[in-house]
Amino acid sequence: MSKPLILVTNDDGIVAPGIKALVNVAKLFGEVFVVAPDKPQSGKGHGITISDPIRLRKVSVFEGIESYECSGTPVDCVKLGKTVLLKDRTIDICLSGINHGSNSSINIIYSGTMSAAMEAHLEGIPSIGFSLLDYSFDADFSAAERYIAELLTLLLHKQKTKENYLLNVNIPALPYDQIKGFKLCRQADSRWIEEYVEATDPKGLKYYWLTGHFDNGDTVEGTDNYALENGYISIVPSQYDLTDYKRMKLFEYLEES
Amino acid sequence: MSKPLILVTNDDGIVAPGIKALVNVAKLFGEVFVVAPDKPQSGKGHGITISDPIRLRKVSVFEGIESYECSGTPVDCVKLGKTVLLKDRTIDICLSGINHGSNSSINIIYSGTMSAAMEAHLEGIPSIGFSLLDYSFDADFSAAERYIAELLTLLLHKQKTKENYLLNVNIPALPYDQIKGFKLCRQADSRWIEEYVEATDPKGLKYYWLTGHFDNGDTVEGTDNYALENGYISIVPSQYDLTDYKRMKLFEYLEES
Repeated sequence: MSKPLILVTNDDGIVAPGIKALVNVAKLFGEVFVVAPDKPQSGKGHGITISDPIRLRKVSVFEGIESYECSGTPVDCVKLGKTVLLKDRTIDICLSGINHGSNSSINIIYSGTMSAAMEAHLEGIPSIGFSLLDYSFDADFSAAERYIAELLTLLLHKQKTKENYLLNVNIPALPYDQIKGFKLCRQADSRWIEEYVEATDPKGLKYYWLTGHFDNGDTVEGTDNYALENGYISIVPSQYDLTDYKRMKLFEYLEES
Repeated sequence: MSKPLILVTNDDGIVAPGIKALVNVAKLFGEVFVVAPDKPQSGKGHGITISDPIRLRKVSVFEGIESYECSGTPVDCVKLGKTVLLKDRTIDICLSGINHGSNSSINIIYSGTMSAAMEAHLEGIPSIGFSLLDYSFDADFSAAERYIAELLTLLLHKQKTKENYLLNVNIPALPYDQIKGFKLCRQADSRWIEEYVEATDPKGLKYYWLTGHFDNGDTVEGTDNYALENGYISIVPSQYDLTDYKRMKLFEYLEES
Protein backbone atom coordinates (compact mmCIF):
# COMPACT_ATOMS: atom_id res chain seq x y z
CA MET A 1 0.00 0.00 0.00
CA SER A 2 1.36 3.45 -0.87
CA LYS A 3 0.07 6.21 1.40
CA PRO A 4 -3.28 5.01 2.70
CA LEU A 5 -6.25 7.32 3.09
CA ILE A 6 -7.43 7.04 6.69
CA LEU A 7 -10.89 8.24 7.73
CA VAL A 8 -10.93 9.10 11.44
CA THR A 9 -14.11 9.59 13.46
CA ASN A 10 -15.39 9.13 17.03
CA ASP A 11 -18.46 9.60 19.20
CA ASP A 12 -17.15 11.86 21.96
CA GLY A 13 -17.02 14.77 19.51
CA ILE A 14 -14.29 16.36 17.42
CA VAL A 15 -12.78 18.30 20.34
CA ALA A 16 -12.36 15.29 22.65
CA PRO A 17 -8.79 14.37 23.66
CA GLY A 18 -9.31 10.77 22.48
CA ILE A 19 -9.69 11.67 18.81
CA LYS A 20 -6.67 13.96 19.03
CA ALA A 21 -4.62 11.00 20.28
CA LEU A 22 -5.92 8.82 17.44
CA VAL A 23 -5.14 11.45 14.80
CA ASN A 24 -1.62 11.75 16.27
CA VAL A 25 -1.03 8.07 15.60
CA ALA A 26 -2.95 7.79 12.34
CA LYS A 27 -0.95 10.54 10.64
CA LEU A 28 2.19 8.42 10.98
CA PHE A 29 0.57 5.85 8.69
CA GLY A 30 -1.11 7.83 5.94
CA GLU A 31 -3.21 10.76 4.88
CA VAL A 32 -5.73 11.45 7.60
CA PHE A 33 -9.19 12.89 6.93
CA VAL A 34 -11.45 13.62 9.93
CA VAL A 35 -15.25 13.72 10.00
CA ALA A 36 -16.50 13.69 13.58
CA PRO A 37 -19.56 14.83 15.54
CA ASP A 38 -19.81 18.49 16.61
CA LYS A 39 -21.01 17.37 20.07
CA PRO A 40 -20.83 14.26 22.25
CA GLN A 41 -22.75 11.36 20.69
CA SER A 42 -22.04 8.56 23.14
CA GLY A 43 -24.68 5.85 23.28
CA LYS A 44 -26.13 6.73 19.89
CA GLY A 45 -25.66 3.16 18.72
CA HIS A 46 -26.24 2.70 15.00
CA GLY A 47 -28.56 5.71 14.85
CA ILE A 48 -28.81 7.72 11.64
CA THR A 49 -30.43 11.07 10.92
CA ILE A 50 -33.40 10.44 8.64
CA SER A 51 -35.84 13.29 9.15
CA ASP A 52 -33.57 16.27 9.81
CA PRO A 53 -31.01 18.01 7.64
CA ILE A 54 -27.36 17.42 8.52
CA ARG A 55 -24.62 20.06 8.60
CA LEU A 56 -20.97 19.63 7.74
CA ARG A 57 -18.52 22.38 8.70
CA LYS A 58 -14.83 22.53 7.84
CA VAL A 59 -12.87 23.15 11.04
CA SER A 60 -9.32 23.75 12.15
CA VAL A 61 -8.71 21.35 15.01
CA PHE A 62 -5.76 19.16 14.02
CA GLU A 63 -2.68 20.80 12.51
CA GLY A 64 -2.35 20.03 8.82
CA ILE A 65 -5.29 17.60 8.81
CA GLU A 66 -8.42 18.21 6.72
CA SER A 67 -11.27 18.04 9.22
CA TYR A 68 -15.05 18.42 9.27
CA GLU A 69 -17.48 18.50 12.13
CA CYS A 70 -20.89 17.03 11.51
CA SER A 71 -24.19 17.74 13.24
CA GLY A 72 -25.28 14.10 12.98
CA THR A 73 -24.47 10.80 14.62
CA PRO A 74 -21.18 8.90 14.30
CA VAL A 75 -22.77 6.72 11.60
CA ASP A 76 -23.85 9.87 9.72
CA CYS A 77 -20.21 11.06 9.87
CA VAL A 78 -19.03 7.93 8.09
CA LYS A 79 -21.83 8.01 5.51
CA LEU A 80 -21.21 11.69 4.69
CA GLY A 81 -17.45 11.21 4.69
CA LYS A 82 -17.65 8.40 2.17
CA THR A 83 -20.58 9.62 0.06
CA VAL A 84 -20.01 13.38 -0.03
CA LEU A 85 -16.58 14.55 1.13
CA LEU A 86 -14.48 11.66 -0.19
CA LYS A 87 -16.77 10.53 -2.96
CA ASP A 88 -14.04 10.48 -5.60
CA ARG A 89 -11.48 8.69 -3.45
CA THR A 90 -10.96 5.26 -1.91
CA ILE A 91 -10.83 5.15 1.87
CA ASP A 92 -8.29 2.48 2.83
CA ILE A 93 -9.14 2.19 6.50
CA CYS A 94 -11.48 3.79 9.02
CA LEU A 95 -10.36 4.38 12.61
CA SER A 96 -12.89 5.37 15.27
CA GLY A 97 -12.11 6.64 18.75
CA ILE A 98 -10.19 6.66 20.92
CA ASN A 99 -13.34 6.32 23.01
CA HIS A 100 -13.25 7.61 26.57
CA GLY A 101 -14.48 4.43 28.28
CA SER A 102 -14.93 0.76 27.54
CA ASN A 103 -16.71 -0.69 24.52
CA SER A 104 -16.11 -4.30 25.45
CA SER A 105 -18.81 -6.92 25.59
CA ILE A 106 -22.40 -5.75 24.96
CA ASN A 107 -21.26 -2.10 24.90
CA ILE A 108 -20.56 -2.61 21.20
CA ILE A 109 -24.26 -2.30 20.36
CA TYR A 110 -24.80 0.97 22.28
CA SER A 111 -21.52 2.51 21.17
CA GLY A 112 -21.39 5.31 18.64
CA THR A 113 -17.66 4.66 18.29
CA MET A 114 -18.16 1.04 17.27
CA SER A 115 -21.25 1.78 15.17
CA ALA A 116 -19.24 4.27 13.10
CA ALA A 117 -16.58 1.61 12.53
CA MET A 118 -19.31 -0.93 11.75
CA GLU A 119 -20.83 1.41 9.17
CA ALA A 120 -17.49 1.81 7.39
CA HIS A 121 -17.03 -1.97 7.48
CA LEU A 122 -20.49 -2.38 5.92
CA GLU A 123 -19.37 -0.07 3.16
CA GLY A 124 -16.41 -2.32 2.41
CA ILE A 125 -13.79 -0.40 4.39
CA PRO A 126 -11.58 -2.25 6.92
CA SER A 127 -12.30 -0.57 10.23
CA ILE A 128 -11.14 -0.46 13.81
CA GLY A 129 -12.79 1.05 16.86
CA PHE A 130 -10.49 1.94 19.78
CA SER A 131 -11.52 2.48 23.39
CA LEU A 132 -9.53 3.23 26.52
CA LEU A 133 -10.93 1.99 29.83
CA ASP A 134 -10.93 5.46 31.37
CA TYR A 135 -13.99 7.71 31.12
CA SER A 136 -12.27 10.89 32.25
CA PHE A 137 -11.59 13.85 29.97
CA ASP A 138 -7.99 13.92 31.23
CA ALA A 139 -7.34 10.23 30.56
CA ASP A 140 -3.72 9.35 29.71
CA PHE A 141 -3.74 8.16 26.10
CA SER A 142 0.05 7.74 25.80
CA ALA A 143 0.18 3.95 26.22
CA ALA A 144 -2.87 3.58 23.96
CA GLU A 145 -1.14 5.62 21.27
CA ARG A 146 1.93 3.38 21.33
CA TYR A 147 -0.08 0.18 21.12
CA ILE A 148 -2.30 1.54 18.36
CA ALA A 149 0.86 2.37 16.40
CA GLU A 150 2.04 -1.23 16.88
CA LEU A 151 -1.31 -2.63 15.81
CA LEU A 152 -1.52 -0.42 12.71
CA THR A 153 2.01 -1.42 11.75
CA LEU A 154 0.94 -5.05 11.81
CA LEU A 155 -2.40 -4.54 10.06
CA LEU A 156 -1.20 -2.18 7.36
CA HIS A 157 2.15 -3.82 6.68
CA LYS A 158 1.91 -7.47 7.71
CA GLN A 159 -1.75 -8.46 7.32
CA LYS A 160 -1.62 -11.06 4.58
CA THR A 161 -5.17 -10.89 3.30
CA LYS A 162 -6.70 -7.71 2.02
CA GLU A 163 -10.06 -8.83 3.31
CA ASN A 164 -12.50 -6.37 4.80
CA TYR A 165 -12.66 -6.57 8.60
CA LEU A 166 -13.95 -4.87 11.73
CA LEU A 167 -12.03 -4.95 15.00
CA ASN A 168 -13.27 -3.87 18.42
CA VAL A 169 -10.12 -2.91 20.34
CA ASN A 170 -10.27 -2.10 24.05
CA ILE A 171 -7.21 -0.93 25.95
CA PRO A 172 -6.77 -1.22 29.73
CA ALA A 173 -6.04 2.02 31.61
CA LEU A 174 -2.51 0.94 32.50
CA PRO A 175 0.97 2.27 31.83
CA TYR A 176 2.63 0.92 28.66
CA ASP A 177 4.87 -1.55 30.52
CA GLN A 178 2.03 -3.11 32.47
CA ILE A 179 0.02 -3.99 29.36
CA LYS A 180 0.77 -7.58 28.35
CA GLY A 181 0.00 -7.35 24.63
CA PHE A 182 -2.89 -8.14 22.28
CA LYS A 183 -5.42 -10.87 22.98
CA LEU A 184 -7.87 -12.10 20.33
CA CYS A 185 -11.28 -12.57 21.97
CA ARG A 186 -14.95 -13.17 21.61
CA GLN A 187 -17.51 -10.63 22.84
CA ALA A 188 -18.34 -11.44 26.47
CA ASP A 189 -22.00 -12.06 27.32
CA SER A 190 -22.30 -9.29 29.92
CA ARG A 191 -24.84 -6.53 30.32
CA TRP A 192 -25.78 -3.34 32.12
CA ILE A 193 -27.94 -3.39 35.23
CA GLU A 194 -29.96 -0.24 34.70
CA GLU A 195 -31.15 2.06 37.38
CA TYR A 196 -33.08 5.26 36.85
CA VAL A 197 -32.74 8.22 39.15
CA GLU A 198 -36.13 9.88 39.51
CA ALA A 199 -36.34 13.63 39.95
CA THR A 200 -39.08 16.25 39.92
CA ASP A 201 -39.05 19.47 37.89
CA PRO A 202 -40.33 22.86 39.20
CA LYS A 203 -43.80 22.03 37.84
CA GLY A 204 -43.92 18.86 39.90
CA LEU A 205 -43.49 16.56 36.92
CA LYS A 206 -41.19 13.57 37.17
CA TYR A 207 -38.24 12.87 34.94
CA TYR A 208 -35.61 10.15 34.84
CA TRP A 209 -31.85 9.95 34.45
CA LEU A 210 -30.33 6.72 33.19
CA THR A 211 -27.64 5.28 35.39
CA GLY A 212 -26.56 1.80 36.40
CA HIS A 213 -23.57 -0.45 36.56
CA PHE A 214 -21.92 -2.94 34.26
CA ASP A 215 -22.42 -6.54 35.31
CA ASN A 216 -19.15 -8.09 34.23
CA GLY A 217 -20.75 -11.54 34.43
CA ASP A 218 -19.01 -13.40 31.62
CA THR A 219 -15.28 -13.26 32.36
CA VAL A 220 -14.19 -16.74 31.28
CA GLU A 221 -10.97 -17.10 29.32
CA GLY A 222 -11.47 -16.17 25.69
CA THR A 223 -13.73 -13.19 26.37
CA ASP A 224 -12.79 -9.54 26.00
CA ASN A 225 -13.66 -8.99 29.67
CA TYR A 226 -11.14 -11.67 30.68
CA ALA A 227 -8.41 -10.18 28.53
CA LEU A 228 -8.96 -6.69 29.94
CA GLU A 229 -9.08 -7.87 33.56
CA ASN A 230 -5.77 -9.61 32.99
CA GLY A 231 -3.93 -6.65 31.53
CA TYR A 232 -4.29 -7.42 27.82
CA ILE A 233 -5.62 -5.29 24.99
CA SER A 234 -8.74 -7.12 23.76
CA ILE A 235 -9.32 -7.46 20.03
CA VAL A 236 -12.72 -8.80 18.96
CA PRO A 237 -13.15 -9.32 15.19
CA SER A 238 -16.77 -8.27 14.69
CA GLN A 239 -19.47 -8.43 12.02
CA TYR A 240 -23.07 -7.49 11.29
CA ASP A 241 -24.91 -10.75 10.62
CA LEU A 242 -27.18 -11.00 13.66
CA THR A 243 -28.78 -14.28 12.58
CA ASP A 244 -29.00 -16.68 15.52
CA TYR A 245 -27.95 -19.80 13.60
CA LYS A 246 -27.79 -21.85 16.80
CA ARG A 247 -31.47 -21.34 17.63
CA MET A 248 -32.69 -21.80 14.04
CA LYS A 249 -33.79 -25.40 14.55
CA LEU A 250 -36.00 -24.44 17.51
CA PHE A 251 -38.31 -22.55 15.18
CA GLU A 252 -38.50 -24.90 12.21
CA TYR A 253 -42.00 -25.98 13.21
CA LEU A 254 -43.25 -22.49 12.34
CA GLU A 255 -42.73 -23.20 8.63
CA GLU A 256 -45.05 -26.19 8.71
CA SER A 257 -47.90 -24.32 10.31
CA MET B 1 -48.69 -19.85 30.75
CA SER B 2 -51.66 -18.11 32.47
CA LYS B 3 -52.28 -14.59 31.20
CA PRO B 4 -48.95 -13.33 29.91
CA LEU B 5 -47.78 -9.77 30.45
CA ILE B 6 -46.96 -8.32 27.04
CA LEU B 7 -44.83 -5.19 26.69
CA VAL B 8 -45.58 -3.42 23.41
CA THR B 9 -43.39 -0.73 21.88
CA ASN B 10 -42.39 0.62 18.47
CA ASP B 11 -40.27 3.28 16.78
CA ASP B 12 -42.84 5.15 14.69
CA GLY B 13 -44.34 6.66 17.84
CA ILE B 14 -47.28 5.83 20.05
CA VAL B 15 -49.84 7.37 17.68
CA ALA B 16 -48.75 5.42 14.58
CA PRO B 17 -51.32 3.03 13.04
CA GLY B 18 -48.83 0.16 13.20
CA ILE B 19 -48.67 0.02 16.99
CA LYS B 20 -52.46 0.24 17.17
CA ALA B 21 -52.66 -2.85 14.96
CA LEU B 22 -50.14 -4.66 17.15
CA VAL B 23 -52.00 -3.78 20.36
CA ASN B 24 -55.22 -5.06 18.73
CA VAL B 25 -53.63 -8.46 18.26
CA ALA B 26 -51.61 -8.56 21.47
CA LYS B 27 -54.62 -7.98 23.71
CA LEU B 28 -56.10 -11.27 22.49
CA PHE B 29 -53.14 -13.05 24.08
CA GLY B 30 -52.60 -11.38 27.43
CA GLU B 31 -52.35 -8.21 29.46
CA VAL B 32 -50.88 -5.51 27.27
CA PHE B 33 -48.72 -2.68 28.62
CA VAL B 34 -47.50 -0.02 26.18
CA VAL B 35 -44.40 2.16 26.46
CA ALA B 36 -43.65 3.84 23.15
CA PRO B 37 -41.89 6.97 21.88
CA ASP B 38 -43.78 10.28 21.91
CA LYS B 39 -42.48 11.05 18.40
CA PRO B 40 -41.10 9.12 15.40
CA GLN B 41 -37.79 7.45 16.25
CA SER B 42 -37.06 5.57 13.04
CA GLY B 43 -33.40 4.92 12.37
CA LYS B 44 -32.36 5.45 15.98
CA GLY B 45 -30.71 2.04 16.05
CA HIS B 46 -29.66 0.94 19.51
CA GLY B 47 -29.35 4.54 20.71
CA ILE B 48 -29.98 5.33 24.37
CA THR B 49 -30.40 8.65 26.17
CA ILE B 50 -27.39 9.12 28.42
CA SER B 51 -26.96 12.86 28.96
CA ASP B 52 -30.53 14.14 28.98
CA PRO B 53 -33.43 13.47 31.32
CA ILE B 54 -36.22 11.27 30.00
CA ARG B 55 -39.94 11.89 30.45
CA LEU B 56 -42.67 9.29 30.82
CA ARG B 57 -46.31 10.38 30.46
CA LYS B 58 -49.37 8.24 30.99
CA VAL B 59 -51.63 8.56 27.95
CA SER B 60 -55.01 7.42 26.76
CA VAL B 61 -54.46 6.01 23.28
CA PHE B 62 -55.64 2.40 23.33
CA GLU B 63 -58.94 1.57 24.99
CA GLY B 64 -58.48 -0.26 28.26
CA ILE B 65 -54.70 -0.59 27.85
CA GLU B 66 -52.25 1.03 30.28
CA SER B 67 -50.00 3.16 28.09
CA TYR B 68 -47.08 5.54 28.49
CA GLU B 69 -45.33 7.75 26.00
CA CYS B 70 -41.64 8.26 26.46
CA SER B 71 -39.43 11.13 25.31
CA GLY B 72 -36.51 8.80 24.61
CA THR B 73 -35.54 6.22 22.02
CA PRO B 74 -37.22 2.84 21.51
CA VAL B 75 -34.46 1.22 23.61
CA ASP B 76 -35.12 3.76 26.39
CA CYS B 77 -38.81 2.74 26.28
CA VAL B 78 -37.92 -0.88 26.98
CA LYS B 79 -35.41 0.00 29.70
CA LEU B 80 -37.88 2.31 31.48
CA GLY B 81 -40.74 -0.13 31.01
CA LYS B 82 -38.81 -2.94 32.63
CA THR B 83 -36.87 -0.99 35.26
CA VAL B 84 -39.39 1.64 36.37
CA LEU B 85 -42.98 1.01 35.29
CA LEU B 86 -43.03 -2.80 35.53
CA LYS B 87 -40.25 -3.21 38.06
CA ASP B 88 -42.25 -5.51 40.33
CA ARG B 89 -43.60 -7.69 37.56
CA THR B 90 -42.29 -10.23 35.05
CA ILE B 91 -42.67 -9.33 31.39
CA ASP B 92 -43.40 -12.54 29.49
CA ILE B 93 -42.86 -11.25 25.99
CA CYS B 94 -42.00 -7.99 24.23
CA LEU B 95 -43.58 -7.11 20.88
CA SER B 96 -42.25 -4.20 18.85
CA GLY B 97 -43.89 -2.61 15.81
CA ILE B 98 -45.70 -3.05 13.57
CA ASN B 99 -43.08 -1.00 11.79
CA HIS B 100 -44.16 0.98 8.73
CA GLY B 101 -41.55 -0.36 6.29
CA SER B 102 -39.10 -3.22 5.99
CA ASN B 103 -36.56 -4.23 8.62
CA SER B 104 -35.18 -7.14 6.64
CA SER B 105 -31.50 -7.69 6.01
CA ILE B 106 -29.11 -4.99 7.25
CA ASN B 107 -32.04 -2.75 8.26
CA ILE B 108 -32.03 -4.59 11.58
CA ILE B 109 -29.03 -2.56 12.79
CA TYR B 110 -30.55 0.85 11.95
CA SER B 111 -34.01 -0.05 13.16
CA GLY B 112 -35.44 1.36 16.37
CA THR B 113 -38.17 -1.30 16.20
CA MET B 114 -35.68 -4.15 16.17
CA SER B 115 -33.33 -2.47 18.66
CA ALA B 116 -36.17 -2.21 21.17
CA ALA B 117 -36.89 -5.92 20.72
CA MET B 118 -33.16 -6.64 20.98
CA GLU B 119 -32.94 -4.71 24.25
CA ALA B 120 -35.78 -6.73 25.76
CA HIS B 121 -34.10 -9.93 24.55
CA LEU B 122 -30.86 -8.80 26.22
CA GLU B 123 -32.82 -8.38 29.42
CA GLY B 124 -33.98 -11.98 29.23
CA ILE B 125 -37.39 -11.35 27.67
CA PRO B 126 -38.44 -13.29 24.54
CA SER B 127 -39.04 -10.62 21.91
CA ILE B 128 -40.38 -10.17 18.43
CA GLY B 129 -40.11 -7.20 16.09
CA PHE B 130 -42.75 -6.94 13.37
CA SER B 131 -42.52 -4.92 10.17
CA LEU B 132 -44.86 -4.52 7.21
CA LEU B 133 -43.29 -3.78 3.83
CA ASP B 134 -45.34 -0.62 3.34
CA TYR B 135 -43.99 2.75 4.49
CA SER B 136 -47.25 4.63 4.16
CA PHE B 137 -49.25 5.93 7.12
CA ASP B 138 -52.38 4.39 5.62
CA ALA B 139 -50.86 0.94 5.15
CA ASP B 140 -53.31 -1.96 5.40
CA PHE B 141 -52.33 -3.92 8.50
CA SER B 142 -55.22 -6.40 8.33
CA ALA B 143 -53.31 -9.35 6.84
CA ALA B 144 -50.37 -8.61 9.16
CA GLU B 145 -52.69 -8.73 12.18
CA ARG B 146 -54.03 -12.15 11.20
CA TYR B 147 -50.58 -13.63 10.66
CA ILE B 148 -49.25 -12.13 13.88
CA ALA B 149 -52.15 -13.76 15.72
CA GLU B 150 -51.22 -17.09 14.13
CA LEU B 151 -47.56 -16.67 15.04
CA LEU B 152 -48.32 -15.71 18.65
CA THR B 153 -50.64 -18.70 18.97
CA LEU B 154 -47.77 -20.95 17.97
CA LEU B 155 -45.10 -19.23 20.06
CA LEU B 156 -47.16 -18.80 23.22
CA HIS B 157 -49.00 -22.11 23.11
CA LYS B 158 -46.89 -24.55 21.11
CA GLN B 159 -43.27 -23.44 21.51
CA LYS B 160 -41.72 -26.35 23.38
CA THR B 161 -38.74 -24.63 24.95
CA LYS B 162 -39.09 -21.65 27.22
CA GLU B 163 -35.80 -20.33 25.95
CA ASN B 164 -35.25 -16.62 25.46
CA TYR B 165 -35.33 -15.62 21.79
CA LEU B 166 -35.46 -12.67 19.40
CA LEU B 167 -37.30 -12.87 16.09
CA ASN B 168 -37.15 -10.36 13.25
CA VAL B 169 -40.46 -10.79 11.41
CA ASN B 170 -41.11 -9.01 8.11
CA ILE B 171 -44.46 -9.23 6.37
CA PRO B 172 -45.00 -8.61 2.64
CA ALA B 173 -47.54 -5.92 1.70
CA LEU B 174 -49.96 -8.45 0.23
CA PRO B 175 -53.54 -9.52 0.94
CA TYR B 176 -53.91 -12.39 3.42
CA ASP B 177 -54.58 -15.03 0.76
CA GLN B 178 -51.53 -14.13 -1.29
CA ILE B 179 -49.10 -14.63 1.62
CA LYS B 180 -47.69 -18.15 1.48
CA GLY B 181 -46.83 -18.61 5.16
CA PHE B 182 -43.79 -18.30 7.44
CA LYS B 183 -40.25 -18.88 6.22
CA LEU B 184 -37.32 -19.25 8.60
CA CYS B 185 -34.37 -17.28 7.19
CA ARG B 186 -30.94 -15.84 7.69
CA GLN B 187 -30.32 -12.09 7.48
CA ALA B 188 -29.49 -11.24 3.85
CA ASP B 189 -26.20 -9.49 3.17
CA SER B 190 -27.68 -6.41 1.51
CA ARG B 191 -27.13 -2.74 2.13
CA TRP B 192 -28.24 0.81 1.41
CA ILE B 193 -26.67 2.83 -1.37
CA GLU B 194 -26.67 6.26 0.20
CA GLU B 195 -27.18 9.49 -1.60
CA TYR B 196 -27.29 12.92 -0.01
CA VAL B 197 -29.39 15.72 -1.39
CA GLU B 198 -27.51 18.98 -0.97
CA ALA B 199 -29.44 22.17 -0.29
CA THR B 200 -28.59 25.74 0.74
CA ASP B 201 -30.19 27.66 3.58
CA PRO B 202 -31.10 31.39 3.42
CA LYS B 203 -27.64 32.27 4.78
CA GLY B 204 -25.99 30.45 1.91
CA LEU B 205 -24.82 27.54 4.06
CA LYS B 206 -25.12 24.00 2.77
CA TYR B 207 -26.98 21.19 4.45
CA TYR B 208 -27.68 17.59 3.52
CA TRP B 209 -30.67 15.25 3.52
CA LEU B 210 -30.05 11.53 3.65
CA THR B 211 -31.68 9.54 0.91
CA GLY B 212 -30.75 6.51 -1.14
CA HIS B 213 -32.03 3.13 -2.19
CA PHE B 214 -31.84 -0.38 -0.85
CA ASP B 215 -29.55 -2.64 -2.84
CA ASN B 216 -31.34 -5.95 -2.57
CA GLY B 217 -28.12 -7.74 -3.58
CA ASP B 218 -28.31 -10.95 -1.57
CA THR B 219 -31.55 -12.67 -2.58
CA VAL B 220 -30.48 -16.32 -2.63
CA GLU B 221 -32.77 -18.93 -1.13
CA GLY B 222 -32.57 -18.96 2.65
CA THR B 223 -32.36 -15.18 3.04
CA ASP B 224 -35.12 -12.94 4.34
CA ASN B 225 -35.01 -10.98 1.08
CA TYR B 226 -35.72 -14.18 -0.88
CA ALA B 227 -38.64 -15.11 1.37
CA LEU B 228 -40.20 -11.66 1.07
CA GLU B 229 -39.77 -11.49 -2.72
CA ASN B 230 -41.52 -14.85 -2.96
CA GLY B 231 -44.54 -13.93 -0.88
CA TYR B 232 -43.50 -15.40 2.47
CA ILE B 233 -43.31 -13.79 5.90
CA SER B 234 -39.62 -13.88 6.83
CA ILE B 235 -38.62 -14.90 10.35
CA VAL B 236 -34.96 -14.38 11.28
CA PRO B 237 -34.00 -15.63 14.75
CA SER B 238 -31.52 -12.97 15.85
CA GLN B 239 -28.93 -12.38 18.59
CA TYR B 240 -26.40 -9.87 19.87
CA ASP B 241 -23.03 -11.62 19.74
CA LEU B 242 -21.26 -9.70 16.98
CA THR B 243 -18.04 -11.73 17.20
CA ASP B 244 -16.79 -12.65 13.74
CA TYR B 245 -15.79 -16.23 14.58
CA LYS B 246 -15.07 -17.01 10.92
CA ARG B 247 -12.37 -14.37 10.59
CA MET B 248 -10.79 -15.09 13.99
CA LYS B 249 -7.93 -17.17 12.57
CA LEU B 250 -6.90 -14.36 10.23
CA PHE B 251 -5.80 -12.28 13.19
CA GLU B 252 -4.10 -14.87 15.36
CA TYR B 253 -0.67 -13.51 14.40
CA LEU B 254 -1.47 -10.33 16.35
CA GLU B 255 -1.20 -12.22 19.64
CA GLU B 256 2.36 -13.29 18.92
CA SER B 257 3.59 -9.79 18.19
